[in-house]
Parts: sequence; structure tokens; C-alpha cells
Amino acid sequence: MKKHGVLNRDIARILASLGHTDQIVIADCGLPIPEDVECIDVSLKQGVPSFVEVLAEILADMEVEGLIAAEEVKEQNPAVHRALTGTNIPIHYLPHEQFKDTTCKAKAVIRTGEVTPYANVILRSGVIF
Amino acid sequence: MKKHGVLNRDIARILASLGHTDQIVIADCGLPIPEDVECIDVSLKQGVPSFVEVLAEILADMEVEGLIAAEEVKEQNPAVHRALTGTNIPIHYLPHEQFKDTTCKAKAVIRTGEVTPYANVILRSGVIF
Amino acid sequence: MKKHGVLNRDIARILASLGHTDQIVIADCGLPIPEDVECIDVSLKQGVPSFVEVLAEILADMEVEGLIAAEEVKEQNPAVHRALTGTNIPIHYLPHEQFKDTTCKAKAVIRTGEVTPYANVILRSGVIF
Amino acid sequence: MKKHGVLNRDIARILASLGHTDQIVIADCGLPIPEDVECIDVSLKQGVPSFVEVLAEILADMEVEGLIAAEEVKEQNPAVHRALTGTNIPIHYLPHEQFKDTTCKAKAVIRTGEVTPYANVILRSGVIF
Amino acid sequence: MKKHGVLNRDIARILASLGHTDQIVIADCGLPIPEDVECIDVSLKQGVPSFVEVLAEILADMEVEGLIAAEEVKEQNPAVHRALTGTNIPIHYLPHEQFKDTTCKAKAVIRTGEVTPYANVILRSGVIF
Amino acid sequence: MKKHGVLNRDIARILASLGHTDQIVIADCGLPIPEDVECIDVSLKQGVPSFVEVLAEILADMEVEGLIAAEEVKEQNPAVHRALTGTNIPIHYLPHEQFKDTTCKAKAVIRTGEVTPYANVILRSGVIF
Amino acid sequence: MKKHGVLNRDIARILASLGHTDQIVIADCGLPIPEDVECIDVSLKQGVPSFVEVLAEILADMEVEGLIAAEEVKEQNPAVHRALTGTNIPIHYLPHEQFKDTTCKAKAVIRTGEVTPYANVILRSGVIF
Amino acid sequence: MKKHGVLNRDIARILASLGHTDQIVIADCGLPIPEDVECIDVSLKQGVPSFVEVLAEILADMEVEGLIAAEEVKEQNPAVHRALTGTNIPIHYLPHEQFKDTTCKAKAVIRTGEVTPYANVILRSGVIF
Amino acid sequence: MKKHGVLNRDIARILASLGHTDQIVIADCGLPIPEDVECIDVSLKQGVPSFVEVLAEILADMEVEGLIAAEEVKEQNPAVHRALTGTNIPIHYLPHEQFKDTTCKAKAVIRTGEVTPYANVILRSGVIF
Amino acid sequence: MKKHGVLNRDIARILASLGHTDQIVIADCGLPIPEDVECIDVSLKQGVPSFVEVLAEILADMEVEGLIAAEEVKEQNPAVHRALTGTNIPIHYLPHEQFKDTTCKAKAVIRTGEVTPYANVILRSGVIF
Repeated sequence: MKKHGVLNRDIARILASLGHTDQIVIADCGLPIPEDVECIDVSLKQGVPSFVEVLAEILADMEVEGLIAAEEVKEQNPAVHRALTGTNIPIHYLPHEQFKDTTCKAKAVIRTGEVTPYANVILRSGVIF
Repeated sequence: MKKHGVLNRDIARILASLGHTDQIVIADCGLPIPEDVECIDVSLKQGVPSFVEVLAEILADMEVEGLIAAEEVKEQNPAVHRALTGTNIPIHYLPHEQFKDTTCKAKAVIRTGEVTPYANVILRSGVIF
Repeated sequence: MKKHGVLNRDIARILASLGHTDQIVIADCGLPIPEDVECIDVSLKQGVPSFVEVLAEILADMEVEGLIAAEEVKEQNPAVHRALTGTNIPIHYLPHEQFKDTTCKAKAVIRTGEVTPYANVILRSGVIF
Repeated sequence: MKKHGVLNRDIARILASLGHTDQIVIADCGLPIPEDVECIDVSLKQGVPSFVEVLAEILADMEVEGLIAAEEVKEQNPAVHRALTGTNIPIHYLPHEQFKDTTCKAKAVIRTGEVTPYANVILRSGVIF
Repeated sequence: MKKHGVLNRDIARILASLGHTDQIVIADCGLPIPEDVECIDVSLKQGVPSFVEVLAEILADMEVEGLIAAEEVKEQNPAVHRALTGTNIPIHYLPHEQFKDTTCKAKAVIRTGEVTPYANVILRSGVIF
Repeated sequence: MKKHGVLNRDIARILASLGHTDQIVIADCGLPIPEDVECIDVSLKQGVPSFVEVLAEILADMEVEGLIAAEEVKEQNPAVHRALTGTNIPIHYLPHEQFKDTTCKAKAVIRTGEVTPYANVILRSGVIF
Repeated sequence: MKKHGVLNRDIARILASLGHTDQIVIADCGLPIPEDVECIDVSLKQGVPSFVEVLAEILADMEVEGLIAAEEVKEQNPAVHRALTGTNIPIHYLPHEQFKDTTCKAKAVIRTGEVTPYANVILRSGVIF
Repeated sequence: MKKHGVLNRDIARILASLGHTDQIVIADCGLPIPEDVECIDVSLKQGVPSFVEVLAEILADMEVEGLIAAEEVKEQNPAVHRALTGTNIPIHYLPHEQFKDTTCKAKAVIRTGEVTPYANVILRSGVIF
Repeated sequence: MKKHGVLNRDIARILASLGHTDQIVIADCGLPIPEDVECIDVSLKQGVPSFVEVLAEILADMEVEGLIAAEEVKEQNPAVHRALTGTNIPIHYLPHEQFKDTTCKAKAVIRTGEVTPYANVILRSGVIF
Repeated sequence: MKKHGVLNRDIARILASLGHTDQIVIADCGLPIPEDVECIDVSLKQGVPSFVEVLAEILADMEVEGLIAAEEVKEQNPAVHRALTGTNIPIHYLPHEQFKDTTCKAKAVIRTGEVTPYANVILRSGVIF
């Protein structure tokens, strides 16, 4: 078995394929998945695993230089917003509709069990050198 | 979005395709996945989600008439064994090697984050009528 | 076998994959199916199953926040129109030609045995939280 | 649209591909589908469509020279058994387990909503000349 | 074997998949087949089967509300033109080049052995109710 | 367009791929097609094209060193048998059941409209040098 | 084996699929092959087979109504140009860059061993009737 | 373009994938190609390219430690046999039928235009170190 | 980009998919790759990367409980043998022919540039808990 | 095994398929790989193999008439820039963002272990005659 990095085989495969500026999405369980984007569904039940749990697990093994989140998260989901700002990674905000359009360019959407609104983020890969 | 049953899209798809006596596996994160069997990996990190959590979620939405587990679970993993016996579903025990061979006939293996030994079970589908 | 939700394995698979605002179509047996859209054909014979029967079965297991129907249904198919308005879900009306164009964005078309005119509806998924 | 024969596009496709002695299965909603056999799922909900309804629709458009049914249907499902004998097509009976093994050679399994036991039949195609 | 409708398995499959306004093409043996359109080749040798034979066989099992033919057929192939007008189905005429462009939207091209010029027609499906 | 040899694109493709001793089948419209063998269906309606017509067309463009036919053709279909013996190609006879088993090794089955019994033949390719 | 027409199985398959105005390319060994166009590589070594040899073999079995060649061939490759004009088929000349763009519409590129410049031609199929 | 080694893109791809003891076949134009073995057809017309030409081209870029040929080549095709023995690579002889069975294990069959009997050879790859 | 574990995207993907007792192979550049086993080719030129370099990189990120090597390595390649024994992982020796047969069960073969004899090893995955 | 040219099977396959002006990319380990472009990953660990090592290996077996590099390489990576200019192949410089867009037209990206900035180059194939 693999010693280092994220345990999930599909997430590990996607992270290993990322180049600088490539994007992946961590989503609540309701975000629509664009037609040609792979969905890695780690949801178990409503709320499990939470958005914050998955975000932490991904950030532990992915170099991230920027986040994109929906404008609406600031007011409608302060807890998730705090988790995002707490990463100290620059965040760019877009209206939710535009956020959804942007997800089409992602390499994958990781679907969590999160059931609080606008709990979605696009992670733009940084460089490990 | 789907109102009823398990939240995970891949697990829902597999459960909906099961006929009487079809089998699926809930596995710890170390069980080898047979070549032609689909792996639904819901693991997030070591121990998360646990075998018991996933077992509960599956049993909530799957008619199960029988379990198959590894002999060794009785002594080497009492906690997991209690969870299995606690389902009140008849359990058939096989030596672990034979258990692994049996997983080849499964429709899918659901990989959890479980990291305790022999935390694997084959669920044989019952009939909803 | 799966305990909860719609019995049909293909419909269950599609519903489980829907995110907020994703669309599916329930169609009479004559609606043309767009090239790249999956057709789940549950028709048995002319009139069986009826549009209304299938609509009820889908709504029982799908969170729906909006309907799109063809203008013409109001006058040309009052029975089906009553079934649609009876759902108390907001309906947006389009000319039939435009309705057909919109079906290209659907995740699937569920083909019924319905043989009354304009008995088609697009269901836009809501959110379960 | 097609003028003659069964309405369902998948069933029509399968029937049109049958040669003499080829087999298809009409099944209750619980029969396990062999790995490499296509499943045409026309089930809508438990009991709908019934085994007998689908059998009638298929026999209307398929030349059948022989039926295979499970021994157990005689006593455990007299209604379905009457429907089978009522076709006046010679029936060969097998123990259910052997019946299930035989379904592996079928070109397709048509899954109904039937929820009464042993409501399954293998139809062996005859010749139209 | 299938009792009713056209004998050819590929033609039966295509006809069964047609919805209202879907189009198929019956072509002479020289019409270029668009890249992404299925070709069902029933040609045996030059002239066999003829365009008229195949047209009759298709019309026997397909609901057709409209025909599209090349302008040039009127003068350059009176026999075929008579066969088309003899169907009493409204015919829309296009210059041959435009006719060829239109075939890209067809579900399939049925290639005959016909070797007389402009012996091609697009059949637009009607509705069986 | 191709100047020489059989007109049908699928038959031409198969013939061009044959090596010495490779086999193809010309079948009546009722012969069951083995699972992994390509079916080229040139049938138009019952009896059209006939077995004899297609046999002639294939022999015009295929080097054949041997035929295999069903024993039963001698008595049950003298016309077809005369067509076979008339080719002056050595014929090996097998019981029909064994004949059917042999078709599994064929590169393709060419399905005609023939509706007379046992009108099937396996053609073993010769060498053009 | 196939009696008539070109010996190469891939070329025979492509020629048999051509309709009127369809195009194929005969190329020297350096022409870039467009992404979605099939390459039939009959090259053996530099110069073998030559462009002229392959052109002769194709013209023996393909009805051709028009050629397209690169302007530059006239001066930069007189021998090949003589071979083209010697076919007595009307030739349309394009600048090499535009010639390359046109090859995207071809059904296939037949790659020879030719190593003299601009030794490429697009063959537009005629009609055999 | 590639500077070194065989010009043909398919042959280069196959040679680059060979490991020690892997086998490829050089065949006359009549050898039957096993179902699951890739055929690289470089034949242009009967006799072109010859078996000997292709053998030379392959041996120029492939490390070969052993040949397998049909017994019959010794007497029935002395010219080809001389070409084989002239390679100074050890030759193992098999009856032609057994030779054909052995070709099933080959990575590819390279089909030449050769039209003299038993002009086939299996090349077993050596090691470049 | 991925922070932890092996850099190569294909190797990372394979390692992440391994369960207990699954096997992968590190091979010299001459080992024949079994038909249905994925080959990850990281060779650059003869000797680069070396077997030992790749072995070290894999062992840094893969839990390994056992090695299988060819008997012959002991005498014919002491340097590589020292590298294997230096891992302090139990080694099971097989005759080279049997070693090669065993590679058919591997999830992947990682091909290095190694050009010294018998520089191959099968790594059997251990468990990370 | 193949005697001549690059050892890596995937690189050999890609080089053998290149025509004049086709492009491939040699990249550092962080370059994002366009969606539809094949990635040949020969990276082993950070810095191994280096960009310069791989460049040399490719140029040894690929005819190259032009290079495209990122403007920024001149100042930000003098060592790599020297390696590029040292090839004496004309270099065209683009801003890095535009360079990345250009890689979409490449036949493949060869990913090295390079971890110095802007160590990427597009190689435009020349002609071997």
C-alpha cells in the first residue's frame, strides 16, 4: 500500500496528475457536476464527511496557491467561510452562478456529505518547486 | 436530488442494481480489490470513515439476508465482530484467504478508512418482497 | 436489494447523480431523444405506463424545485396539465420547439408509454438541504 | 416512429436480434442479473408492471417455441404458473438455482416490477418460417 | 424471433429509437455517409436492392410525416421521383448539396444497391398517436 | 468509390481481412448469431435477398476451398442443396446442432432474408496464390 | 480471401466505405496526419513503396473524379507532378499549407515511404454509376 | 520525425514494446490472423512488398534470438528458406498447422504482399544487453 | 500539485490502488510485459534510470512485506542482488521462467532503463496498519 | 527488442507517428497537461530525470526544425536557456501563458522530474528527407 499522502485512491490519482494552475473542486453534496468532469464521491450521509474535514485532508497533500469561492458564502455560511480564510490562501470570490460555470474546467469534483449552503471551493494548484 | 436512500451516488447505483443473492463487500482500507470488481472508495483518512459507520449506512438502505466474514475477525477484531453480530443477520465464517477469493464474485467493494485487521464483510442481498 | 427510493435501477442511478439545478425529462413515447442524452425507456405499450404514473413515481424520490413544460400542453392536454399544476411546483412554459431544444441539457430522458400530445416535462432538481 | 411490434426501443432491438433457440428472460424485480447479460429494466414500482403484463406484451411480438421456469413456481406462485401454462407453449421446469445458472446464456433480462416469488421465465425463440 | 415489423435487425433497432421529427436516410449506393452517422448497408450488388424496394419496406413499418429529396431528382430520375410522390407524403425539395448537408442530422443512412442518380430521400418521423 | 469486388462495405471489409482457412457464414434469417461474432444483416424482408442470391455474390469475390452445411439440408431443402453442390466446391456435412457450434469460429455471419429451412453454409477461405 | 480489388485489408475497407465526393490522401512519409483521421501506414523504408506505386494501386480500384495537390509540386517535384497529370484526372492546386488543412476532411491518409517533397495528393471519389 | 529505426509507425510502435522472448510474425498475404492479434498490413499488391524485403527491414531494427518456421517451407519455398537460413539465426521448424497455432501468442502479424507458399516466420525477440 | 509521495503520476496512481498482497514489478528494460498488465515505462536510455534508483524511489512510498526475485540474480547480478537483500525485506526466489509467469498477476510493471541481467523484482504490498 | 532509437516505448511510439511540423513538449514536472493531450511521465523524483537529460535523449532520435520556449526562461532559468540555445535550433519565444495555450496542439507532453522554473520546450518536427 502507499505510505504517503491522501489515502483515497481516486483523490491520490487526481492530485498526482495536477500541474501548476490545474483546478479541483471540493463540493457540498448538492453542487451539479459538469458533464465531462470526473466526480469523486466520498459522501457517506448528510453532513458526513463535512466540507471542512475534506478540505483539511486535501490541503495536507496538495500544493494550493489560490482558492475560488462563491460570494454568497461570506454571509450565508460563516463557518465554512472561516475555514476557507483560515487556510491563509488568497481567495477570489465569484457570484455562485459564475462559480458553477468555472467548475467545468476542473480536473475533478470531490463530493462531500456537506449540507450547508455554498460550501464549495475551487483549489488552484501551486508548484512544489 | 434523490430524496431517499444512501447519499453516495456510486453506492446508490450499485444497490439499485442488486438482485437476490448478489454480493457487495465493505472493506478496510487494505483489502486487495479483485481485478474485475468495481471499487467505490469512500476512505478519507486512516480510520475515517470507520467500518462500522459505513456498515450502518449500507444496512439502512440494503436488504441483507446473510453476511460472510473472516474467521480471524472473532479474535483479532472483537469490536468489528460485535458490530457484525449486532446486525442479527446470519454470519458465515471463512478463513481470510478463502474470504478474499470469494470477493471476486462481488458487484463492488466499498473501501472504508478502517485500519483495524480483518474489518471486511460480504453482504448477500435479500429480497424486498 | 435497495430498500428505499425508486425501484428502477437506471432511474435510481440518474437521480443519485443529480446536483442542484440538474435536469431530467419525463416524455411521452414520441419525444425525439437528443443525440448525447441517455434514454431510459420504461414504455411497455401505448399508454402504459402513463405520463402521470411515472411523474408520481419520480416526484416521490426526487427533490424538484421547478418544472418546464410546453405552452401547448395547456390547451391540447388538460389532463396532463392538471397533473403538472397539481404538483404545486412552479412551472415555466416554453413553445414546444424551444422545449425540445432545452432537453439537450438533460441528464436523461425517461420515455413513458404516454400517447397523448405534449405530455413532456423537464424537472429541475432542488436541494435536499 | 416504428409502426409495428413492441413499443419499448430496447426490447424491440433485442427481439429483432434473436435467432432460432436464442433466449431472453422475463424476471421479477429480485432476480440477480448475470454479469455479462444486458438488463432492460421496465420496472416502475413494486408490482408495476406485473410479470403477466410484460409476458403478454413480449409474446405478442416474439415467436416462442419453449419456456423454462423454476420448479417452485407451481406451488409457490399459482397465478404466475397459470399465466405460463395459459400460453400453451411447452414448459420445461428446473430447480430455481439451475434456472438462475441458465439465465447466463440469455441475450437479455427484462426486469419487471413483479414482487411475487419465482415469477421468472426463460423464453426460447422459435422461427418465423 | 420478432414477429412484427421490418426483418432487418439494424433497421428495426433504428426505427424503434425514433421520436417525432427524427430523420433517417434511404440512399443510393453512392451517397457519402457523414462522419458520425451510422450506415446500415443492405446493398448486395449494383441495383439490388433497389431504392424503391427499400423505401416500400421502410414505409411499411415507419410513421413518416415528411420527405426531403434533391431538386435534381425530378428531372434526372423520374422513376424514383414517381415512387416518392406516390407515397402521398409531403415532399420538400433541396438542392443536392444542401440535401447532403442535411443528412448529418440523420439517425442512420440505409445504403441500398441503387445506381440511378439522386435516388436519396430523408424521411422525417411522424407520431404513432 | 471502390471499382472492384462486392458492393457492400461490411462484406468487402470482412472479405479483405480473410486469410487462408478463415470462415464466414451465409445464413437464413433465423440462424442464431454467436455472442462474439459480427452479424452483417442484409435481409430486407422474408425471402429477400434469397440465400442463393447472396451465395452467388459472395462466391464472385471470395476464394473458397470448402463448404460446411447441415446434414438436414439434403432432404429438407433440395433447392438450396442444389445451389451448394452446384458450386463444385467440396462440401462437408454436419448435424445442424454441430453446424451451429462451428459458426462460433466464423469472422462474420451474413444474414439473408431466406426463410427456407437449413439454408446456411460455412465458407472456408482458400488462397489467391 | 478476397478475389478482386486492392490487396491491403485497410485500404480495401476504406475504399468500400467511400461515397461520391469522399476524400482520401496518399502522402509522402512526412505529411502530418490530422488528429481524427485514420492513418494507413504502408511505408517500409525511405522511398519504399514510392508515391507513384501506391497511386497506381489505388487508382486501379478507386473511382476518382478529381485530385487536389500542392502548388509547390509543379516545380519542386516534376516527377510526381507528371505522375499526377498522367492520370488525366482534373487537378486542383492549393498552397501546401491550405492543402494540409484540407486533409482534415479525408476518410484516411495512406502513408507511403516517399521521401521527395510535396508528394501528396487528395483523391476525391467519383461515382461507379 | 523519428531519425532512427524502422520508418513504419505501427511496426516501430510494436518493436519498441517488445521484451525478451516476445514474438512477432512476418506473414505472406494469406496467413489467417488470430482473433486477438494486431495485424499490421503493409501489403500493396500481390508480391509487393516481398517477404524477404520486409524480413530484412525488420531484422535491421529488431534484436532476434530465434526463428520459427513451417516445416514445409524447406521443400515448398526454397527461396524463402534460403532467406531464413541466411539470417544465421537459429530456426525451429513446426508443422504448418502447429505454426499457425503458435501465432496466437504473437504481439502482431506483419502482413506482406508475398504470394509464395509457407512464406511465414515467427521472430522471437532477443535482448539488447 | 501533490505534496507527498512518489512524483510520477502513473506510479502514484498504481500505488494508491494497492491492497494488502497486491503485487507490482520493477523490471529491467528487457522483461516481456504480460498481455493484460499495465506497463509504466520510465526508461530514458540504456542504464537510466537504473533498477536500484527506481527500487529506492518505490520503497520510499510503498509498504512492502515481501520480494520475489529470479534465482539467477544471485550469481548473474550480485550488485542488484545486494540492493535487494539490502532492503531487509524477505525475498522468495523462483527460476526466471516461473518468475516471468508470476508477473501476470501484477497490477503494473515499472520498466526501468536497467540493462544488467535478471534485474527484476516483484514487490508484494504490505499493510499500512 | 528494438535496436535503434529511443528506448522508452511510449516516446518511440509518439516519435514514429510524427509528421513534418507536428509538435511534442518536454516539460518540467509542474506544467499543466492539456485535457486531450497524452502525458508520457518519465519523472522519477524531483530533479530526476532533468530537463536537459531528456532533451538530449529526444534530440538524438527526433528531427527538429524549430523550438518554442517561454520568454521568461531567458532570465529565470539561464541553465535551461543555454541548453536550448546550445541545440542551434531556431527558438521562438512566447509569454508563458501563451506557451501553455500552444501545448494544446502537441501530440504528447513528456513530463520530466525537472523542478526549475520555465523548463519547458515545444519541439516542432522537421523532415527526415
